[in-house]
Amino acid sequence: MPLNEAVLAGLENIVGKGNVAADAAARYVYGSDASIHHHTPDAVVRPGCTDEVSRIVGLCDKELVPLTTRGAGTGLSGQAVPVKGGIVLEMMRMNRVLSVRVEDLYCEVEPGVVFAGLNRALEPHGYWWPPAPGSGDVCTIGGMIANSASGIRTVKYGATRDLVLGLEVVLADGTVIETGNRGLKNASGYQLEKLFVGSEGTLGIITKARLRIVPRPKSSGSLIASFPSLEAAGGAISQVYRNRLVPSALEIMDRNCIQAVKRKFGTPLPDAEALIIIEMDGDRRVVEEDLKAAGEICRAAGAGDIDYATDPAKVAMIWESRKQVLPSMASFGGKGPISVADDLGMPVSKVPEVVRTFGEIARRNGLIIGAYGHAGEGNIHGKVLIDVKSARDWEAARRATDEIYEAVLKAGGTVSAEHGIGITRARLFRLERGASIEVMRRIKKALDPKGILNPGKMFDAPDDMLSENRYILGECD
Amino acid sequence: MPLNEAVLAGLENIVGKGNVAADAAARYVYGSDASIHHHTPDAVVRPGCTDEVSRIVGLCDKELVPLTTRGAGTGLSGQAVPVKGGIVLEMMRMNRVLSVRVEDLYCEVEPGVVFAGLNRALEPHGYWWPPAPGSGDVCTIGGMIANSASGIRTVKYGATRDLVLGLEVVLADGTVIETGNRGLKNASGYQLEKLFVGSEGTLGIITKARLRIVPRPKSSGSLIASFPSLEAAGGAISQVYRNRLVPSALEIMDRNCIQAVKRKFGTPLPDAEALIIIEMDGDRRVVEEDLKAAGEICRAAGAGDIDYATDPAKVAMIWESRKQVLPSMASFGGKGPISVADDLGMPVSKVPEVVRTFGEIARRNGLIIGAYGHAGEGNIHGKVLIDVKSARDWEAARRATDEIYEAVLKAGGTVSAEHGIGITRARLFRLERGASIEVMRRIKKALDPKGILNPGKMFDAPDDMLSENRYILGECD
Repeated sequence: MPLNEAVLAGLENIVGKGNVAADAAARYVYGSDASIHHHTPDAVVRPGCTDEVSRIVGLCDKELVPLTTRGAGTGLSGQAVPVKGGIVLEMMRMNRVLSVRVEDLYCEVEPGVVFAGLNRALEPHGYWWPPAPGSGDVCTIGGMIANSASGIRTVKYGATRDLVLGLEVVLADGTVIETGNRGLKNASGYQLEKLFVGSEGTLGIITKARLRIVPRPKSSGSLIASFPSLEAAGGAISQVYRNRLVPSALEIMDRNCIQAVKRKFGTPLPDAEALIIIEMDGDRRVVEEDLKAAGEICRAAGAGDIDYATDPAKVAMIWESRKQVLPSMASFGGKGPISVADDLGMPVSKVPEVVRTFGEIARRNGLIIGAYGHAGEGNIHGKVLIDVKSARDWEAARRATDEIYEAVLKAGGTVSAEHGIGITRARLFRLERGASIEVMRRIKKALDPKGILNPGKMFDAPDDMLSENRYILGECD
Repeated sequence: MPLNEAVLAGLENIVGKGNVAADAAARYVYGSDASIHHHTPDAVVRPGCTDEVSRIVGLCDKELVPLTTRGAGTGLSGQAVPVKGGIVLEMMRMNRVLSVRVEDLYCEVEPGVVFAGLNRALEPHGYWWPPAPGSGDVCTIGGMIANSASGIRTVKYGATRDLVLGLEVVLADGTVIETGNRGLKNASGYQLEKLFVGSEGTLGIITKARLRIVPRPKSSGSLIASFPSLEAAGGAISQVYRNRLVPSALEIMDRNCIQAVKRKFGTPLPDAEALIIIEMDGDRRVVEEDLKAAGEICRAAGAGDIDYATDPAKVAMIWESRKQVLPSMASFGGKGPISVADDLGMPVSKVPEVVRTFGEIARRNGLIIGAYGHAGEGNIHGKVLIDVKSARDWEAARRATDEIYEAVLKAGGTVSAEHGIGITRARLFRLERGASIEVMRRIKKALDPKGILNPGKMFDAPDDMLSENRYILGECD
């Protein structure tokens, strides 16, 4: 359904004709993100500044037009899919790095700045903003904040939520608020800058962010170790922490991921049940000593092959296999991965037990599931592989997803450590959060009483994730 | 006004007679915290478990009895003063360390655990929980979370808000919710565990906390450097960050603090305009090299005396002068300090300019103001010294406080970096937070519609902080 003419004219009046698109092609494209979901918006609007955002939101508030904010559209759970129609507010024009203040340990950015671009701007200062997600070359800072994103170095440097010092936010009625301050902490009322992190565009629109920056490490080194069992790998990780080592990354790949990488790229990995990659960073001598200590821990825990590297070229080779996991899984066993159980959080020590369960669930449901991810903080990505044209496979994936999340919640975990809730995870999110859901609903109602901001997500998404799965199901016809 | 008999009997029924006190002496004692405020509660109730807290809150909700939660009562802004009467809920009986899980990098505690006690429990594991406030020997974890506390090592390890992974909270209607999860991060809905941090008991009662723990550093070393001007000291701090050094503490003392320490304790400090103390921790070789680099930076920035230490005894001596500041100020110039402008946050680079302003404000108002604190994160403690029996001095302090905060807000700072808002800072907090105040009010209303949890604080405290200052004014008669 197209927007009524007056609303469209109002939007064009705010941002200019060139920044409103209501043609079928644009609307179709902006109906998807990187998830399995699709819904066509009525229009796409591209604001250039906070004042424009405020006026757009004011108009939507008055006319009751649903508004879904979008960065680069890399979200994996449908956060940027406008399931109730209305407008998609695309923030990519607001893409300036506003300041880099090394002496104050912060930088200020507009929400459309791309993660990698920010780090290029910080590099000449010898600083960086660490929470590197897999999509870091394209994803935006605004999207990272809205989805509480993180990545492989979060285990040492913290997730996005830990590195946001302040936000400028446009509320549902168009009011602009400032949160946080220009110091490095505050105890000045409710920590609203933290509340907006992970709120997925349901409470307000982030128009500026102040981020804590940290010095780039002077050097780094990595090791890769293969293990005869998931439990042996898990034992090594526990010992790393008991020995007070502080890795800057600690990743795991299970048997399926190892095999997929070997077949697709011919990477010479051992035929192990699990691989772990450990990175240390900092002073070169300490890096070398800590890597050696970590290697001895792995050996004592039963590791077979262990490879070390501190020169950048060899370090890059070690990490190449980790980067190959996702593209390898895209075609492993003639099937493709769907993002349904892709982001599990759990206690670090429970990783072996839970990943082993995935194998049983996969067998039971006739599926292939690969597991890899940030084992050092208990964050595992489960890739469920299916034939996306098979209704039977979709059904099996749905069953397997439920079983996977049941295992994760039983272990005291979460249905999302870093990918967000959106639509895909909504039912299990409600199961996980229990009585907290009512608190979230009340906060949503208090800040967005008319429900115009990203409606139909999280607590308001349907029980059946596939009921919004119009894009993929459309292709199944 | 005593509580009605039925409510009192109901409370005794929940926690046992021995854990309810309604006699004049107990009520008087629990009318104060470490702030300038006082108000006598109707009763003091000491719960022993979450279920008791839930039932107490349920009763207060039904009978509309105001409820103010209290840990060790070390708050400096009146957070635990029951200004609307009702009951004080004293959490010190819930004081167990429930688990220490080094392999999962967290521990779980009840809210009445004392900060120093938790760290004694973590020490045998080689771990600690870092955000050490000045009151760390007595303050509770629950109080630290409720007030978003921090301390001298926050500059490297983060504030309380950064190190809380999950909370169990009793809401205003008695409902118990769990937030966070047992992994190290989550992107699973609104980050409620962060919202409760700094909410000062106005949104719920913390009954359990899951905290990120970190390895204790292997060694540490410190330097103390004197400067001929605040600007020279500030220049050194900027250069420390430009050179990518990461201090584990970076403190400052101004001329008044230096003189107070010299007079009171005879500590042989130089007659400088400013002293800074820098601590580095980690590998011993790196600590020594980084301290040397920091010392050279100080020298280049104009430092006079520079003293280094890496052996623990000499390190302790360097820090002794910093610890002597507060007791020294207690009697400097025949006056005593009041907590009114004691916790200022600002951009790190603005510290010299703002502290210089304090001197002008002090002169203009006929007061002495000493400034010291966590300069490395822009958190300065201003100690306003007055004769507490002089109405003129109170009036001058009130004027000076306004002027100090005006300077801080102009610099992009906050009226509280770590001491909280309570009553003392309420008016200036509202000035600082502007349109955000309405957001906080709406959240408060959504979670505590009857307004029974710590009423009369933050956004609801009176404009005139001295209108609740009954304790001190009582002594002035």
